[in-house]
Amino acid sequence: MKIGRIRGADGSARLALAHDDRNLVDVRTAETLRRMRAGASQDAADRVAAALFPGSLAAAAASGPMLMEALAEVREFVAAGAAGAEEALLPAGEARFLAPTDPRVMRDFMSFEKHIINATRRLGGQPPETVYRLPVSYKGNPTTLLGQDDVVPWPSYTERMDYEMELGFVVGRGGRDLTPEEAVNALLGVTIFNDFSARDIQKEEMGGMLGPAKGKDFATGLGPWIVTLDELDLANLSMTVRVNGEERSNGVSGEMMWSPAELVAWASAGEQLHPGDLIGSGTVGEGCGLELGFFLGPGDTVELEVGGIGVLRNTIGQPEPRRWYPSPRQPSL
Amino acid sequence: MKIGRIRGADGSARLALAHDDRNLVDVRTAETLRRMRAGASQDAADRVAAALFPGSLAAAAASGPMLMEALAEVREFVAAGAAGAEEALLPAGEARFLAPTDPRVMRDFMSFEKHIINATRRLGGQPPETVYRLPVSYKGNPTTLLGQDDVVPWPSYTERMDYEMELGFVVGRGGRDLTPEEAVNALLGVTIFNDFSARDIQKEEMGGMLGPAKGKDFATGLGPWIVTLDELDLANLSMTVRVNGEERSNGVSGEMMWSPAELVAWASAGEQLHPGDLIGSGTVGEGCGLELGFFLGPGDTVELEVGGIGVLRNTIGQPEPRRWYPSPRQPSL
Repeated sequence: MKIGRIRGADGSARLALAHDDRNLVDVRTAETLRRMRAGASQDAADRVAAALFPGSLAAAAASGPMLMEALAEVREFVAAGAAGAEEALLPAGEARFLAPTDPRVMRDFMSFEKHIINATRRLGGQPPETVYRLPVSYKGNPTTLLGQDDVVPWPSYTERMDYEMELGFVVGRGGRDLTPEEAVNALLGVTIFNDFSARDIQKEEMGGMLGPAKGKDFATGLGPWIVTLDELDLANLSMTVRVNGEERSNGVSGEMMWSPAELVAWASAGEQLHPGDLIGSGTVGEGCGLELGFFLGPGDTVELEVGGIGVLRNTIGQPEPRRWYPSPRQPSL
Repeated sequence: MKIGRIRGADGSARLALAHDDRNLVDVRTAETLRRMRAGASQDAADRVAAALFPGSLAAAAASGPMLMEALAEVREFVAAGAAGAEEALLPAGEARFLAPTDPRVMRDFMSFEKHIINATRRLGGQPPETVYRLPVSYKGNPTTLLGQDDVVPWPSYTERMDYEMELGFVVGRGGRDLTPEEAVNALLGVTIFNDFSARDIQKEEMGGMLGPAKGKDFATGLGPWIVTLDELDLANLSMTVRVNGEERSNGVSGEMMWSPAELVAWASAGEQLHPGDLIGSGTVGEGCGLELGFFLGPGDTVELEVGGIGVLRNTIGQPEPRRWYPSPRQPSL
């Protein structure tokens, strides 16, 4: 199943399912139609449909396995071609996609050794030993997620805009202190994750031992679909990057040093994972401009393609004017 | 004004105001009584009170300056001693405090030079130059905030439990690309912030260049009150730590290298700050066990006292059993 979120005509977020190459399903509308067809009044049908399928994926996923059962019923209803069911279909080209989840917490790991080696070499170093002992991560900003075709804001403090090709693992039922075996069952599915990066400020703040923060927090691309695990071979997802239509790199998910299950298990150690939470794989080898020696410019289009999931496409915006920047302090010693 | 959150008899979160040394005000109940006294039906009075004062501080703060006006009306109503108004009072000793805000994003900075010097010396180094050029930060876990008297969970992966005495700045109206002058007006108030830390895992993961994550994400103490800026001299807040009743350190807020306004302004550069968001000052000099050469044990009680705000008290729980831990990977080179 491919699950996404779109902006409805009234501006609200709505869950969607991929239907075929051309169309998607507005899930709440389909469920309303399904219930009306079974004899419910429109008010009652829409009331239940809205409760089952809120616009927040985090809220929907909190229903646990019953969310997947309810989505499967919607899919069958539409696939059966019942009279009127086509009212719930929407041409994919007309939909405005939102980031497919709205996580409370967003973690991003480093798990592709090739990226770590390439990136640290560019900065004149080598991989720290820690990355072989633990999956290390930082927390991103869950309020600046962008959906398909959204324009990436260019913060005033950077001249080095970059992309990062990652997988995004979306938490379903959640849990705490999970083992890797349990962690797989805690996942809802996988999406495409573009960890946009301001390299100059990122380098500066990572020298300060915390974060990164401003180097990452302005934007993360996500989507277009969350694909459930039954439809994917997690160890063999192809990961291809194109900038302005030109291929820049390709890799495969099986190069991860830490499996998705291990990342989720470690994220859950000593703290609860919540439905809808987002966990990034880290950048695939050669999956960013830093490794390849180039950066993005205003107006550039970045496409991240993952086999079985789709293509996530975003365009880079214009640099914003600077209103303030910190002035240096004098060390007291 | 001192604003907090308590757990109501029905389990829901409720906004509270400090009334006097012994009592606090259940804000929604007081507003319901105020409206009934002015002739509203109970249903209508409670409906409006619930909309004005939801249990989420983030949701309440999204009303902007009108939240403060509404709180002032409640305070006046209770202070005037109207017949029946005492129904909205609750002995502070009987209240169960929640963390006073429920932020979407929680940032924690380093701004006290003395802490940076002491902590890096303990780790055999010295302050990186970056900390004098920029306010550096990482993002914490907003879903593991603890309130007054909550027990701090002890994750299975640590043997080095520590506290950190910080100030917590709570965002009111929010904003983006604020100057320091504008940033002060974007704040709702200040609270006490205990950045509990697992030092062994924190040291390990900071060697990995990201985070910290597991070293911090299991718990953060917050509260008991958010005090509005008109009642505080931000440059002269005393910050005293007691462990099991014994004083360990004291400092003053004026030792910050970056002002609260500068931290908020930098946090807002290129990204929106939202109502209720939480921004930590970083640890005051000598405000953690790491700097003083000791760590906490199960059952220890930590009290952080900030002049004009109050005392935040938490007790350390028992170590949890380990279910899984990552096994090291072999470098390919």
